[in-house]
Amino acid sequence: MADQTSTQPLVGIIMGSQSDLKVMDAAAEVLETLGVPYELTIVSAHRTPHRMFEYAENAKKRGLKVIIAGAGGAAHLPGMVASITTLPVIGVPVKSSNSIDGWDSVLSILQMPGGVPVATVALDGALNAGILAAQIIGTSNAAVADKLDKYKTGLKDKVMRSVEELKRGDRDLD
Amino acid sequence: MADQTSTQPLVGIIMGSQSDLKVMDAAAEVLETLGVPYELTIVSAHRTPHRMFEYAENAKKRGLKVIIAGAGGAAHLPGMVASITTLPVIGVPVKSSNSIDGWDSVLSILQMPGGVPVATVALDGALNAGILAAQIIGTSNAAVADKLDKYKTGLKDKVMRSVEELKRGDRDLD
Amino acid sequence: MADQTSTQPLVGIIMGSQSDLKVMDAAAEVLETLGVPYELTIVSAHRTPHRMFEYAENAKKRGLKVIIAGAGGAAHLPGMVASITTLPVIGVPVKSSNSIDGWDSVLSILQMPGGVPVATVALDGALNAGILAAQIIGTSNAAVADKLDKYKTGLKDKVMRSVEELKRGDRDLD
Amino acid sequence: MADQTSTQPLVGIIMGSQSDLKVMDAAAEVLETLGVPYELTIVSAHRTPHRMFEYAENAKKRGLKVIIAGAGGAAHLPGMVASITTLPVIGVPVKSSNSIDGWDSVLSILQMPGGVPVATVALDGALNAGILAAQIIGTSNAAVADKLDKYKTGLKDKVMRSVEELKRGDRDLD
Amino acid sequence: MADQTSTQPLVGIIMGSQSDLKVMDAAAEVLETLGVPYELTIVSAHRTPHRMFEYAENAKKRGLKVIIAGAGGAAHLPGMVASITTLPVIGVPVKSSNSIDGWDSVLSILQMPGGVPVATVALDGALNAGILAAQIIGTSNAAVADKLDKYKTGLKDKVMRSVEELKRGDRDLD
Amino acid sequence: MADQTSTQPLVGIIMGSQSDLKVMDAAAEVLETLGVPYELTIVSAHRTPHRMFEYAENAKKRGLKVIIAGAGGAAHLPGMVASITTLPVIGVPVKSSNSIDGWDSVLSILQMPGGVPVATVALDGALNAGILAAQIIGTSNAAVADKLDKYKTGLKDKVMRSVEELKRGDRDLD
Amino acid sequence: MADQTSTQPLVGIIMGSQSDLKVMDAAAEVLETLGVPYELTIVSAHRTPHRMFEYAENAKKRGLKVIIAGAGGAAHLPGMVASITTLPVIGVPVKSSNSIDGWDSVLSILQMPGGVPVATVALDGALNAGILAAQIIGTSNAAVADKLDKYKTGLKDKVMRSVEELKRGDRDLD
Amino acid sequence: MADQTSTQPLVGIIMGSQSDLKVMDAAAEVLETLGVPYELTIVSAHRTPHRMFEYAENAKKRGLKVIIAGAGGAAHLPGMVASITTLPVIGVPVKSSNSIDGWDSVLSILQMPGGVPVATVALDGALNAGILAAQIIGTSNAAVADKLDKYKTGLKDKVMRSVEELKRGDRDLD
Repeated sequence: MADQTSTQPLVGIIMGSQSDLKVMDAAAEVLETLGVPYELTIVSAHRTPHRMFEYAENAKKRGLKVIIAGAGGAAHLPGMVASITTLPVIGVPVKSSNSIDGWDSVLSILQMPGGVPVATVALDGALNAGILAAQIIGTSNAAVADKLDKYKTGLKDKVMRSVEELKRGDRDLD
Repeated sequence: MADQTSTQPLVGIIMGSQSDLKVMDAAAEVLETLGVPYELTIVSAHRTPHRMFEYAENAKKRGLKVIIAGAGGAAHLPGMVASITTLPVIGVPVKSSNSIDGWDSVLSILQMPGGVPVATVALDGALNAGILAAQIIGTSNAAVADKLDKYKTGLKDKVMRSVEELKRGDRDLD
Repeated sequence: MADQTSTQPLVGIIMGSQSDLKVMDAAAEVLETLGVPYELTIVSAHRTPHRMFEYAENAKKRGLKVIIAGAGGAAHLPGMVASITTLPVIGVPVKSSNSIDGWDSVLSILQMPGGVPVATVALDGALNAGILAAQIIGTSNAAVADKLDKYKTGLKDKVMRSVEELKRGDRDLD
Repeated sequence: MADQTSTQPLVGIIMGSQSDLKVMDAAAEVLETLGVPYELTIVSAHRTPHRMFEYAENAKKRGLKVIIAGAGGAAHLPGMVASITTLPVIGVPVKSSNSIDGWDSVLSILQMPGGVPVATVALDGALNAGILAAQIIGTSNAAVADKLDKYKTGLKDKVMRSVEELKRGDRDLD
Repeated sequence: MADQTSTQPLVGIIMGSQSDLKVMDAAAEVLETLGVPYELTIVSAHRTPHRMFEYAENAKKRGLKVIIAGAGGAAHLPGMVASITTLPVIGVPVKSSNSIDGWDSVLSILQMPGGVPVATVALDGALNAGILAAQIIGTSNAAVADKLDKYKTGLKDKVMRSVEELKRGDRDLD
Repeated sequence: MADQTSTQPLVGIIMGSQSDLKVMDAAAEVLETLGVPYELTIVSAHRTPHRMFEYAENAKKRGLKVIIAGAGGAAHLPGMVASITTLPVIGVPVKSSNSIDGWDSVLSILQMPGGVPVATVALDGALNAGILAAQIIGTSNAAVADKLDKYKTGLKDKVMRSVEELKRGDRDLD
Repeated sequence: MADQTSTQPLVGIIMGSQSDLKVMDAAAEVLETLGVPYELTIVSAHRTPHRMFEYAENAKKRGLKVIIAGAGGAAHLPGMVASITTLPVIGVPVKSSNSIDGWDSVLSILQMPGGVPVATVALDGALNAGILAAQIIGTSNAAVADKLDKYKTGLKDKVMRSVEELKRGDRDLD
Repeated sequence: MADQTSTQPLVGIIMGSQSDLKVMDAAAEVLETLGVPYELTIVSAHRTPHRMFEYAENAKKRGLKVIIAGAGGAAHLPGMVASITTLPVIGVPVKSSNSIDGWDSVLSILQMPGGVPVATVALDGALNAGILAAQIIGTSNAAVADKLDKYKTGLKDKVMRSVEELKRGDRDLD
């Protein structure tokens, strides 16, 4: 698992519960790969509402540029953080154990009212949340933008390798 | 439409937007019928988060016993209020214009995590939210409990009148 | 598992089938924690309709203040009990083995017609049903209200402990 | 609209609310067409639970052979009647104004637990409920069985007429 | 597993595939319990359409009174049989391996057009299909009607035994 | 509306009910545009099952190459035709008045069991059914293939015209 | 698993990811059975968009008659290929690990706009995709059409064998 | 309606069809309000795939920082653009006339595979797409960030005005 960097974090990764960590860690890992400093902690909208308020209110002052928030069930964390800060907030719907197949997580993050956007990614899509955060940073940071280009090339290369394997008859059906 | 009473309100009716008023007013009306003093105002989780915090934190001190909160779409108001107060919070999912047939409203109110309940009623079920608030007050207020008994008898009487009308052939198919 | 208390029960926990017990027991446990006397038994709307009628009709006379009813599939128990008593009824949709992913349980409890509310909690949300029952009792019982405050503080403390663990690098991804 | 017959009714048509009448009347009409005596009234599971109990308990003694029960939203009437009587009960999910697109009506009638069947027809399918009731009567009544054969032929004839119209170029696209 | 009876069968149990047998066998078993002679075989609407036609066309002549048809996915067997015979047809939506959580099975059996009813039971509800078939037979057969009364009493007795067990503290949470 | 051609039809367009004609006519029109001879008639799986059998059994002998079948609700026509013929069958789910928002139409056509495919297009997607039929004919008919290329170019041209209109400020928001 | 044939392939089987292979291989196998030459490779719309463009643009020139494309989640491969070529494109919604129970896969393949059809088969329905491709080839290839007739007879024979087994009491309930 | 600005656009707003314009125009308007230069045009993934490729490939070179893409039904435009560029892509699911209540639009935009994120906003949420684009620009542009702060204050002020109106009894229930 990725370690937190010691430089000024640009992305704050938060999640509603420790149990979301195994999903959300993919965001941390890809930010590390893409050279974007981040921080990661637990902030529960429902169990630590004051902590959530403070986190959201201070995020910009502390130098964060983007917040990634993951939560499941009636997932209020991303939307509530977005109601307090004007930083872009990326929401990760988590298919938690108390979720109805993920539909509650998706809808309670996605369907924000006009005025307060949350950039929602796929169910359990923490990897994409990390990449999206890097893309946002990359709009004003050429080094990160370059790493994103390389990452995209890597995605293509991996497909081409499986194309070659298939040609050679190496098909692993599991 | 019901006026707000001037005595100490026991039930606080709040909603995320003025457009919810035509749904939520049914809660006010039935509380009036059942003799339960209430107050009614607009509190938006997403557009006035500080106001929401203050409302929830002071509700109990101000003498409220129950909070009814209505919202639509990614409806965070009932759950966030419940995260701050220990008063019972009744959530009314509103089928607002930006809702996907009401599913988002229902799921983002109903599916609260363990520890922070919201007493959810049917989609657009503000009437039932008002009755439920009165039932809660009625657990320690005999006058309200009596009015609830009469209200229940009234429901039965209305059905029996339509039974009689049908017998007499008065069937209004519209 | 929680034992039933011997003092006058204030909350009646009922469920449609013995198989619901492993979900519904969480309501009993948290009521014990919160110092609210309760009783717990099986009442099937579909297999023991007369028993259900009697239970609902006598609940208030027997001193109960709140009823918690859990059922799955075409879950009629909470709504039918609510049709007979004027006590507040809390419905717990159970994701039973014959349920279609819980949707039938949720909708047949939540979508009650105007006049007959059921306070619905999340799918398998018996813990929250217990807390909500205590919140209702707490509107007129300061001791229970105090315990609810402490319970809420406990929720926060647990999150803060996991925040600390995460800081120290103790991340258990399972 | 069909009138109620004066002979011993064999089918009891009941519905939860007068507003269901415009859907449920199709059952009455087709029973008239098929020569099956019926009765029709309003019985609300949630607003007149005692009336529902009595209706279900006395249905067989009064000579009824089949019960058709229509209801919408959290629709408990068909299932509760089936819990009390051993007569076949046909359930008609009604897409009432408080329903979430009919899903609640369908699921709360269809998903009955093992032991207590409800013969569910399509959403707003009162016509088919009437035909199904006649088919049940027809299992021991040759006159009704004959009328069902003629009815089926009539369905075919109507299609063949529209086939002919189409051939002649008479296509009414509205 | 139940054997097929040798007397004139009154109920025909058919299913689309051998793999449905482990669900559909519950219908056979309860018909045996209720003293209703039946037959059981495989008839696939999609793979043996002519066999299906012949089965449906001859069912009444062969003395059958009711047909129970189980199928999954795009489940056409119950509805197609109902299009050919005027006998009451009971449809059992099977949650087969190729089904989308059972929704396709349910909707393609339930939502029959006006004129051609299928008496649909719950997903995988073959037990209830058997009881319903017996209820239909019981409208003109006092012996079967009596067995249904006893069966209903048995359901109640089983609940009451679990009530007693719970009182004695015998709670098996698995 | 398109007229039927007098040459040997290659595509048979059938539908369950005259009311489907206003949706299904788009298939006829585009086949006319693409120069593919077709026939169009009404064949109801549920009301004229024998006619459906004969249509499906004779289709290939009569020179048809593709069948387009539209139906709504529990839509069995496309799948049943596919069970009888080995011609490619294109299914059009129709959002008919008795459909639950089209879900039943889609699922009962799409979810065919292994061995019996139906080429399903979008809800009310008769236009695409016609194009797909032409694409199938076009695999062995160069004239039709050429017309398909032109049709595709026409789609692009229409978009480019709206691009130009937008540039000129001609934005019609209705 | 089936090997790729060396003659001119008529059907191109493509899929978005190597992990789709265990679903998609059923298409290859049945094409082999039906004597239709095919090719099989990996083409990702999202990770190798240029490769997808080239594949779709050259497919017809290379002699392919039909394309089968399988993908899961937000499945854009079948629709994008169909936007580029005028060959018939068969889409296989794959229930991949990142899919919400398959609904995203189904809807993002099925619901193509007017002008650009995708012939969609059931969720994970690669077998039917292969048969459908053969049916399309069979419209102008008598040898393949004959094999399809035999395949259909084989489906019937398999059912009849299970009918016989059931008669002899050989019921494997697993 | 907003006019396009003449300075270097930072945000490219594209949509699949002219009919999406009445939804998507809200993005343009709010970008104007927030002082962010933009361009707006029609790019159809399915009808102009080459135009889409070129647009996506050149977007970054042309100086765009963010792309907003709206589409309905099987909505492939946002995801396909994201597969080609490394700029952040915001997807707006449009509830177009051919959509199944918007579910297809939402799922085919949201559920992107790992590696290729789309920042999805609510159904028809073009206003929020515009704000989110401004938030992304605002991470490196203080003037835009300031305007976002003012916009947020404006949201609060509007709620507070409706609170005051409600106090004065000015309740417009329409």
